[in-house]
Amino acid sequence: MHDEPIMDVAHLGHLEIFTPKPEESLRFFVDVMGMTESGRKGDSVYLRAWDDYERYSLQLTASKTSGLGHAAFRARSPQALQRRVKALEGSGYGIGWHEGELGHGPGYRFPDPDDHVIELYYETEWYEPPPELRPSLKNQAQRYPARGVGVRRLDHFNCLAVDVKANREFFERYLGFRNTERIVLNDGTEAGMWLTCTNKSYDFAYTREAHGVKGRFHHVTYALDSREAILQAADIFLENGVYIETGPHKHAVQQTFFLYVYEPGGNRVEVANAGARLVLAPDWKPILWTEEERKKGQAWGLKTIESFHTHGTPPLPDQHRSEDDEGSIAGVDDLSEKGIAS
Amino acid sequence: MHDEPIMDVAHLGHLEIFTPKPEESLRFFVDVMGMTESGRKGDSVYLRAWDDYERYSLQLTASKTSGLGHAAFRARSPQALQRRVKALEGSGYGIGWHEGELGHGPGYRFPDPDDHVIELYYETEWYEPPPELRPSLKNQAQRYPARGVGVRRLDHFNCLAVDVKANREFFERYLGFRNTERIVLNDGTEAGMWLTCTNKSYDFAYTREAHGVKGRFHHVTYALDSREAILQAADIFLENGVYIETGPHKHAVQQTFFLYVYEPGGNRVEVANAGARLVLAPDWKPILWTEEERKKGQAWGLKTIESFHTHGTPPLPDQHRSEDDEGSIAGVDDLSEKGIAS
Amino acid sequence: MHDEPIMDVAHLGHLEIFTPKPEESLRFFVDVMGMTESGRKGDSVYLRAWDDYERYSLQLTASKTSGLGHAAFRARSPQALQRRVKALEGSGYGIGWHEGELGHGPGYRFPDPDDHVIELYYETEWYEPPPELRPSLKNQAQRYPARGVGVRRLDHFNCLAVDVKANREFFERYLGFRNTERIVLNDGTEAGMWLTCTNKSYDFAYTREAHGVKGRFHHVTYALDSREAILQAADIFLENGVYIETGPHKHAVQQTFFLYVYEPGGNRVEVANAGARLVLAPDWKPILWTEEERKKGQAWGLKTIESFHTHGTPPLPDQHRSEDDEGSIAGVDDLSEKGIAS
Amino acid sequence: MHDEPIMDVAHLGHLEIFTPKPEESLRFFVDVMGMTESGRKGDSVYLRAWDDYERYSLQLTASKTSGLGHAAFRARSPQALQRRVKALEGSGYGIGWHEGELGHGPGYRFPDPDDHVIELYYETEWYEPPPELRPSLKNQAQRYPARGVGVRRLDHFNCLAVDVKANREFFERYLGFRNTERIVLNDGTEAGMWLTCTNKSYDFAYTREAHGVKGRFHHVTYALDSREAILQAADIFLENGVYIETGPHKHAVQQTFFLYVYEPGGNRVEVANAGARLVLAPDWKPILWTEEERKKGQAWGLKTIESFHTHGTPPLPDQHRSEDDEGSIAGVDDLSEKGIAS
Repeated sequence: MHDEPIMDVAHLGHLEIFTPKPEESLRFFVDVMGMTESGRKGDSVYLRAWDDYERYSLQLTASKTSGLGHAAFRARSPQALQRRVKALEGSGYGIGWHEGELGHGPGYRFPDPDDHVIELYYETEWYEPPPELRPSLKNQAQRYPARGVGVRRLDHFNCLAVDVKANREFFERYLGFRNTERIVLNDGTEAGMWLTCTNKSYDFAYTREAHGVKGRFHHVTYALDSREAILQAADIFLENGVYIETGPHKHAVQQTFFLYVYEPGGNRVEVANAGARLVLAPDWKPILWTEEERKKGQAWGLKTIESFHTHGTPPLPDQHRSEDDEGSIAGVDDLSEKGIAS
Repeated sequence: MHDEPIMDVAHLGHLEIFTPKPEESLRFFVDVMGMTESGRKGDSVYLRAWDDYERYSLQLTASKTSGLGHAAFRARSPQALQRRVKALEGSGYGIGWHEGELGHGPGYRFPDPDDHVIELYYETEWYEPPPELRPSLKNQAQRYPARGVGVRRLDHFNCLAVDVKANREFFERYLGFRNTERIVLNDGTEAGMWLTCTNKSYDFAYTREAHGVKGRFHHVTYALDSREAILQAADIFLENGVYIETGPHKHAVQQTFFLYVYEPGGNRVEVANAGARLVLAPDWKPILWTEEERKKGQAWGLKTIESFHTHGTPPLPDQHRSEDDEGSIAGVDDLSEKGIAS
Repeated sequence: MHDEPIMDVAHLGHLEIFTPKPEESLRFFVDVMGMTESGRKGDSVYLRAWDDYERYSLQLTASKTSGLGHAAFRARSPQALQRRVKALEGSGYGIGWHEGELGHGPGYRFPDPDDHVIELYYETEWYEPPPELRPSLKNQAQRYPARGVGVRRLDHFNCLAVDVKANREFFERYLGFRNTERIVLNDGTEAGMWLTCTNKSYDFAYTREAHGVKGRFHHVTYALDSREAILQAADIFLENGVYIETGPHKHAVQQTFFLYVYEPGGNRVEVANAGARLVLAPDWKPILWTEEERKKGQAWGLKTIESFHTHGTPPLPDQHRSEDDEGSIAGVDDLSEKGIAS
Repeated sequence: MHDEPIMDVAHLGHLEIFTPKPEESLRFFVDVMGMTESGRKGDSVYLRAWDDYERYSLQLTASKTSGLGHAAFRARSPQALQRRVKALEGSGYGIGWHEGELGHGPGYRFPDPDDHVIELYYETEWYEPPPELRPSLKNQAQRYPARGVGVRRLDHFNCLAVDVKANREFFERYLGFRNTERIVLNDGTEAGMWLTCTNKSYDFAYTREAHGVKGRFHHVTYALDSREAILQAADIFLENGVYIETGPHKHAVQQTFFLYVYEPGGNRVEVANAGARLVLAPDWKPILWTEEERKKGQAWGLKTIESFHTHGTPPLPDQHRSEDDEGSIAGVDDLSEKGIAS
């Protein structure tokens, strides 16, 4: 009889994103994305979508550059947290406990094999809306703010990784994530992998970093309730001068209906809808996509835009930038020059 | 430190529904709901929605009357199945193993306190589409059949129960279901409860049986990808002469966007969409609705239609039917007379 | 050879609505409906939806009570305006020219047989958005304001009339409106009629006033782009404490997807979507609905709510109010008492 | 005082499309597009969308090659038809009366300056559905067939023209069409123009033929009720192996939400939705798009696919085909070889 699945991680809790343009990034997330500020501490502003049950799902931190601060998952129970910490300590990857963060209890931090900082915590602060943000229906975390895109909840994130397979195996082994789909190139290496700890078909994804630079970030995604809401978002981004990179369209991988933009700090942000798709099978067998299949583009034939393979945050150090990359891996200043960032 | 959650039940697998009009019910599910026949055995026809990963999600069984045959959940692992069987045997509720059903391995059957037959199984047959039903995208179980309503996957079911609370506690204790919302009347009794074993906010619900008759069925629900698809379904039901009981509208409880119809055999069928709503919190605290709150009707003010409280299948025995109930608890023959069943 | 159609009226231009609660009504139209203020004069605030090409489509006028100030149609050409004025003068209905209104040139005013004031004008002021409201696409009148419901354009209005048929014949004969649908009761009288001067299936409707009081108003309707947007509007109304009278649902007559609310001044406001439905036939034969057909309720079976037949603005004089009407024809103060107006 | 608008053309009535693969094209329009066959005569099969009030909107004619047979508009009245015929006869363009076509009375035919055959008629046969296709609501032409894409009604067509401006002026002068938008290149020539005779923002469009060949066809468009329906159509096309050229996305010009495919005969077919957008202004001033503005791509940034500028039907004669064009202007046989036509 095979081993039983590890069910210790409950869900993605929040992301910390660095921005070199904190005020403009904040305006983007509040005014355009329609999120609500729910705290400030040090260089960070904490933000939430209206259906996030915890106090926040995004920690926006002023920084010299862009990229991922850390990604945090909530454990299923105090015991589950202890089990994962023990496993991580045994893996040689553990960093240690991090305390005093806004909104949740002690978090255990560790790097993945690509040096992104990941955090695991259990104790958390449930969001208590002030009177003017109390919802009409008591089974909802916060009043729906009919402002901008009006994102519902944090959905997933995507990092770049030099060695995708090593990261997949790390998260499978030590944290119990399940791999639902992956891209395997003709040379046998992996170019992308999607992992879940819930019934969503993925809670995060890692795709290949083409320049050999570790720790880079690809995008954060917020969920909307319908594909129509994604189309409305496209108009809202257009009207607000937000650079739309690609979409709306449907991914072949995971079938997500997607729309990618760059926030003013340079980080890629996605709004997405999965319809009623869930992965309910406890023994789901990973879908393997070949190099040839991926060349066909997205579900309805849209060719994958070049910058999608190259743009990440923070921007690449100069020695890693080729002429070809210049447009697509543009940092914030470059975007401004091109008039594609506000 | 509190006990850890039981994670042994993976998801709702299938329902067996009785129908006294097997041919008309079959035409409803295939032509109007857009489902696919995937097997026949004895008095049963097996049916599937295009995104169900198992061979079927609905067993339609010819019978003298309507109602629920049994409801089956898939365990998370062989070990999980054994653990639940052991717990059920200890509860005094176990019936025993049932073998030889189409599409899955041995199933352990037991009655809930209201005498509905529930089944738990692990081994299952993944659906293998014939060539003409192979999907274009390999991460999909079956080609999307653009026929009728085109339901995506089994979502949940609802039974009536004389003692709602006893059933809630039974499923919580022996199977590890988590209660997300419930209705508590002024006298302290429970009028409805919604349970989940996934990240969906409910996998089934029990609401109060007003006539004291055990084992009755309220409805089975299939998921569609958007609220727009529910509205399209309403037009399709209208054009096909299917009796629409209520909807489309949004429930206050669970916020589901719903539409209820009666299939020709008399059983209530729902198509629904939950938007991007999920219950991710491992420690979700049940939402309690009061009698007064429920009297306000549905989310946008629609008054709950009387038959929603009274119509169940099978029809009530004569001695339980009052004059007031006559219209709403109409059996199949009554529906025909009224011209609201085909 | 039959007479040729009169094509002199181009479209509905704007409505003047009276409100006894001007500040609250203004907040409703700006914050909840998402309209833009585009002028003030005297006791009136002028408002526009983002796709209205003229300066405004709603004149909100502070008054002692609620109801319709006037309804204005734009003529197709200066010559067309002169032709209609000549016809109206010959009808004995003409009042005369009204000048000095904001945003358009001289308007010829006249009462319909039910004493609603109607206006016809040609010269108009095209909306010029200030820099912050300039749209990204030059074929759009104004930037889409992602605020509240975000209504697109004025669609139609509905008045009550004691003699529906007399009003229909008046608008057909003197203004060239075409009747697309009407309700004819068993006694041969008309209970409702829908008229158009465009390819929309109606630009306004008159339904029967049950109390014999002339000049009353039923509702004004703004168009949204999709049925999903109407559902989103329902949530926004719910979250803002706006009284939802009925809907969202689909009318059998005209098949409009509708949602009715009361603005704080007591006037009924609708948001609606017609899908891609247009009346293109120049010789469309009116659809006649019988009393029995109307008793079936709306398209998907929703029973027409009683207040829909009785609530109009201004509130009825006391001598016309029966006990039965009390709830449904409630004036603003009554609404407040019932907690259904903010 | 300026001249009054000519209102003699009521709407686009039908298109005749040539196909070298009549059986496969028929299957596409019936099974995938969800249209209904409503007649056969000679080499033609007549097809209708469920909301077309006339007997048909598409005449599919077996032929040696692909392309447009003729495009037909319905006049507003018998008198209007006579006026237009007289004007056309005076223009030197008239061909003469064409009788005996299925479903409508005598049609006056004439070439436009690019040699497309255009027809004008008044008498028409209203569609009478057989019992099994009778709609549930009497204000609808035919039961909604929940099969395939399920297109609602003919919306518009697009031809290629060597001299776009000459064609625009021809239709404006002799038929009274109004120009709502056009593309004017830096050299002052016109690259595209959109004309309307209704409140739709266009009933047809002509875009520049790059190879100097007259009489070519770009696409025919059917309307769907929502953008969500267009997305559903994309999945249906994908599942049926239909070649998707581009979309779904939103045009900057006219803001139409579009999706383009090739039917098996090689003709381009579009499904589209305009939201609630209408052109109501009788004096709409044409929107002029510059060369630079068009280079920005579609509304949300999608680059216009090359074949959109080059692929037309019938395929170009050999001497007009450059190597660059080969892929994009591929005829039917070429499509088959590439596996992008069934």
